[in-house]
Amino acid sequence: MTLLIISGSSRKNGNTETLAKEAASQYNGEVKWIHLREKNIQQIVDERHEEAGFTPVDDDHLELVEQMLQADVLLFATPVYWYGMSGYMKTFIDRWSQAMRDEDLDFKNRIKNKPSYLIICGGNEISIKGIPLVLQFRHTFEFLSMDFKKYFIGEARRPGDILNEPHQLAQAKLLLE
Amino acid sequence: MTLLIISGSSRKNGNTETLAKEAASQYNGEVKWIHLREKNIQQIVDERHEEAGFTPVDDDHLELVEQMLQADVLLFATPVYWYGMSGYMKTFIDRWSQAMRDEDLDFKNRIKNKPSYLIICGGNEISIKGIPLVLQFRHTFEFLSMDFKKYFIGEARRPGDILNEPHQLAQAKLLLE
Amino acid sequence: MTLLIISGSSRKNGNTETLAKEAASQYNGEVKWIHLREKNIQQIVDERHEEAGFTPVDDDHLELVEQMLQADVLLFATPVYWYGMSGYMKTFIDRWSQAMRDEDLDFKNRIKNKPSYLIICGGNEISIKGIPLVLQFRHTFEFLSMDFKKYFIGEARRPGDILNEPHQLAQAKLLLE
Amino acid sequence: MTLLIISGSSRKNGNTETLAKEAASQYNGEVKWIHLREKNIQQIVDERHEEAGFTPVDDDHLELVEQMLQADVLLFATPVYWYGMSGYMKTFIDRWSQAMRDEDLDFKNRIKNKPSYLIICGGNEISIKGIPLVLQFRHTFEFLSMDFKKYFIGEARRPGDILNEPHQLAQAKLLLE
Repeated sequence: MTLLIISGSSRKNGNTETLAKEAASQYNGEVKWIHLREKNIQQIVDERHEEAGFTPVDDDHLELVEQMLQADVLLFATPVYWYGMSGYMKTFIDRWSQAMRDEDLDFKNRIKNKPSYLIICGGNEISIKGIPLVLQFRHTFEFLSMDFKKYFIGEARRPGDILNEPHQLAQAKLLLE
Repeated sequence: MTLLIISGSSRKNGNTETLAKEAASQYNGEVKWIHLREKNIQQIVDERHEEAGFTPVDDDHLELVEQMLQADVLLFATPVYWYGMSGYMKTFIDRWSQAMRDEDLDFKNRIKNKPSYLIICGGNEISIKGIPLVLQFRHTFEFLSMDFKKYFIGEARRPGDILNEPHQLAQAKLLLE
Repeated sequence: MTLLIISGSSRKNGNTETLAKEAASQYNGEVKWIHLREKNIQQIVDERHEEAGFTPVDDDHLELVEQMLQADVLLFATPVYWYGMSGYMKTFIDRWSQAMRDEDLDFKNRIKNKPSYLIICGGNEISIKGIPLVLQFRHTFEFLSMDFKKYFIGEARRPGDILNEPHQLAQAKLLLE
Repeated sequence: MTLLIISGSSRKNGNTETLAKEAASQYNGEVKWIHLREKNIQQIVDERHEEAGFTPVDDDHLELVEQMLQADVLLFATPVYWYGMSGYMKTFIDRWSQAMRDEDLDFKNRIKNKPSYLIICGGNEISIKGIPLVLQFRHTFEFLSMDFKKYFIGEARRPGDILNEPHQLAQAKLLLE
């Protein structure tokens, strides 16, 4: 059994990843990470309605999607930038529209019912202002019939702040239970 | 007086841009466009809390922000991809965090009170499921004390569909009034 | 064919009812009204989990629900009080939990697929701050498999203000088209 | 120092009140309760724009508001009925519009900066579908410059269910810390 953490952080060891580690520490199986910041992912060119379909793109996206589809459980972890997921994460997810039309991938069938968790972390009244981001993941998971298990909204500003938040760390640890 | 339309579409002449054109047709002044898909904009590396601050990035972002700050009125126009703004738009906005720390730009002062409009357009129950995206822009505009005038949620699926929607075109035309 | 307007206004001829009248003017059939303020509707006593079920209540609720179930199309019209529907409307809807357990009513089957519209009207940045209320109706309609057609958010403060808003009146008139 | 719990439950000892008790158990001061279901509170008649203002109403509202204004800390606790606060709670809050115009009460000044907490509890995907209700309280608290400290969304269906949820009880206990 494999848990895959897909991290949208632009920084190593940021608060979001710390929370994801706490959550993953309780997972009974292998834990893998994708750090999107280390990957080459191009913006989507929307060719859904072109007769020839999408033009293949020479970057890391296809391989990352394949890893995602192979995992048993997904944990999306993104810092909140401007009240949304990071551009790394958004760019990654936008390209799902292309992956869905790749017959070899069988994207829709394989992602269906996939147990999925969400951790977001930010600073500015995040428990309220992070809500639209939670709703977007919810709509996305619902559209793909993924199994949205739980989400956690972390509050932290400066790098390392979350380490001084024992209650939040404890709650993150319960996320996958 | 200048209206700047910042388009997050990945396609030329998509429904979102058609709606933006309708809105702009009533603007009494010069109308300019930024098509983000034609620009080179790197993802942010969050160095807000590094002592040395952000490392300068050699791409188009700074110039686009300067254009934005010079405009009298802003219209953000983005298709709805996965219930959010496009990756083009998100990547552009994420980098505002860097621009805000560029003393020469004077970002915060110049964007303050800027009259700003929003057009989003999508297909899947968009009048409900586009709501989180509207809230994200609202939070962003509020954080920067921009003057969020009005938004319009367009509904269209295939390229050109919006041309068969006279009510929507008429409403878009009223946006800037 | 009958359109039933269920009004949660506490005032005669308020802005919300004016908008509802505009919308109804285009309806090709009989138009009926329920003014909840004129009715006696008790708060719910939640006895869903009592063995004996709900205790019958001697007020107007059952009759109003019967009218609602008989109508072909529903238009819920409520002023926005404190960012939500009026207490009249909320008290009416809360009691649906009781009506759903009344076997003679056959509530669930009869409300299923009912075409339903929503008009809300308020003053304080209503196009943003009225959004949670729209989402609540959406969740309610979805729970009951009602057919949520469209909503309209009106902006008006003082009684009669909406009469000076030709664009809004025109849009309300298009609601049922 | 006094914590006042304002409960919108229609049932004694429901899950919402259990969570509120857990939260209150950590309060260092006197704990008082208002059970709205035991009170007589009339629906509002909106006379904000009448020259003579609001007609006084002979019910319990004024006294309850006075208790609310005297408390040092507020905890609003409501079950989620139809994705919103209960009709008891909504009816109580609607009448604040009247209380605000009662010069003797000095409502606005006395409620300003009041530390306020929120507990909601429901069953149907409540962590997502309870979100609009949280936003409504947030808008209300913001409008009145109240100090919205924290909220807790409980998940429970049948009476007593929450007693089998040690994690939730533990989290509720941390609410006021």
